Amino acid sequence: MTVKQLSMPELVASCGVLGIGNVGLWREPVQTYGLEATAKIVRDAGLTVTTLCRGGFFTAIDPRERSQALDDNRRAIDEAATLGTDTLVLVSGGLPAGSKDLHGARERIADALGELAPYAERRGVRLAIEPLHPMYASDRCVVSTLKQALDLAERFPAHQVGVTVDTYHIWWDDDAPAQIARAGAGGRIHTFQLADWTTPLPEGVLNGRGQIGDGAIDMREWQGHVEAAGYTGAIEVELFNDGLWARDGREVLAETAARFVEHTA
Amino acid sequence: MTVKQLSMPELVASCGVLGIGNVGLWREPVQTYGLEATAKIVRDAGLTVTTLCRGGFFTAIDPRERSQALDDNRRAIDEAATLGTDTLVLVSGGLPAGSKDLHGARERIADALGELAPYAERRGVRLAIEPLHPMYASDRCVVSTLKQALDLAERFPAHQVGVTVDTYHIWWDDDAPAQIARAGAGGRIHTFQLADWTTPLPEGVLNGRGQIGDGAIDMREWQGHVEAAGYTGAIEVELFNDGLWARDGREVLAETAARFVEHTA
Repeated sequence: MTVKQLSMPELVASCGVLGIGNVGLWREPVQTYGLEATAKIVRDAGLTVTTLCRGGFFTAIDPRERSQALDDNRRAIDEAATLGTDTLVLVSGGLPAGSKDLHGARERIADALGELAPYAERRGVRLAIEPLHPMYASDRCVVSTLKQALDLAERFPAHQVGVTVDTYHIWWDDDAPAQIARAGAGGRIHTFQLADWTTPLPEGVLNGRGQIGDGAIDMREWQGHVEAAGYTGAIEVELFNDGLWARDGREVLAETAARFVEHTA
Repeated sequence: MTVKQLSMPELVASCGVLGIGNVGLWREPVQTYGLEATAKIVRDAGLTVTTLCRGGFFTAIDPRERSQALDDNRRAIDEAATLGTDTLVLVSGGLPAGSKDLHGARERIADALGELAPYAERRGVRLAIEPLHPMYASDRCVVSTLKQALDLAERFPAHQVGVTVDTYHIWWDDDAPAQIARAGAGGRIHTFQLADWTTPLPEGVLNGRGQIGDGAIDMREWQGHVEAAGYTGAIEVELFNDGLWARDGREVLAETAARFVEHTA
């Protein structure tokens, strides 16, 4: 998504030029290029798919909506398996229209995980609950902290459900380092993502994630926390940024790779 | 600030018409009308000033900026005393330009409180640290949770330093009810403010606080928490909202009073 202006073949070619061996994919561009075609082009290029984003949106009360969400998540799990990744990132969903019940919404997430986690395990896919910044709590994700995500994940085995650690969402939280340690001890850090925090935030606060190094987050510090907790997996960079999307995608990918080298250990 | 389009005499008159006996004031409108004049007009009308907003912005590293901030806060304390309120609300400040050190910034707040709290006590004024929503952590307030605010406040006596509980900033936090209980047990809930959470957030995320009842927050639930913790003081409504500011201030004040009655116990 950082370079969503690139087509799938352009992305794969650019990764090759830059020596990038891992890529995290989103469902929409995969569907645009075709699931089987994407699986083939990344496999032929020797690229490893780190994660698929995203499943989730589990908070509907209406039974029909809820059933549709579960069906869609089973498809997402199947897609992850086809792409050869072992991790599906979950964005849990916000409050249903008119509801003020955060606790109830979080319980419905647990119910959905109970239905999906065994299905995912049979396909070799782990679910990774992503806490989103509290500014998304009403309309996008009622799971706002790593602690809440782990409280949900720990109801299930670690090989079924873990968490996504994304600097953009947790950097402000002085409890997050302890929760990273908790997640690591339980084998539940299923992916680690970087984005920087820059202000002013844009209207809607969706597409203002900063390029690595441009903002308030010390990337090495968070990398240190996850590595001290035992994480040895890939590190993803996930930027939603209208300014970056308006530029040449190859140039943005090269810049992002350079920033990654500059700001990580 | 909810009706900043009203002049001080218009505000006082509108409170009289609506039977509102308490008002929270901000420094800028007080300075516009004049400090002594404001103290007189509210006193003559029988209005109680609940709090003065705001002091703070303690996070500068530069010694000159830091000294200026402390001087300005001493003036704010003096103004609170002149207005007859016992509470000055503090917004702590964001990260200095180029800094990524949230912990250091929070320690500089503690240093500033150490200098200001005895001065405030001599003037009969309590300082009330307000945790702001984590979306303000970089540019406005590095104190993002009630827990962090209490960890700072508890370094000082409760009659010197407490906290501001504002629904807008804490509603997403499932640890906040426990922290309210902690604050109440220590006699540190120095004021309680209401605003609702509505989306989409506007650019810059400053002026999108929702009218009571328009958003995701259950006001009665939070009122229940602070009252169970022993809070018996006034309840303030503090809305920064471009839409409300564009309307007739008397009408907005009447609407706000009606919403308050509808959505609180």
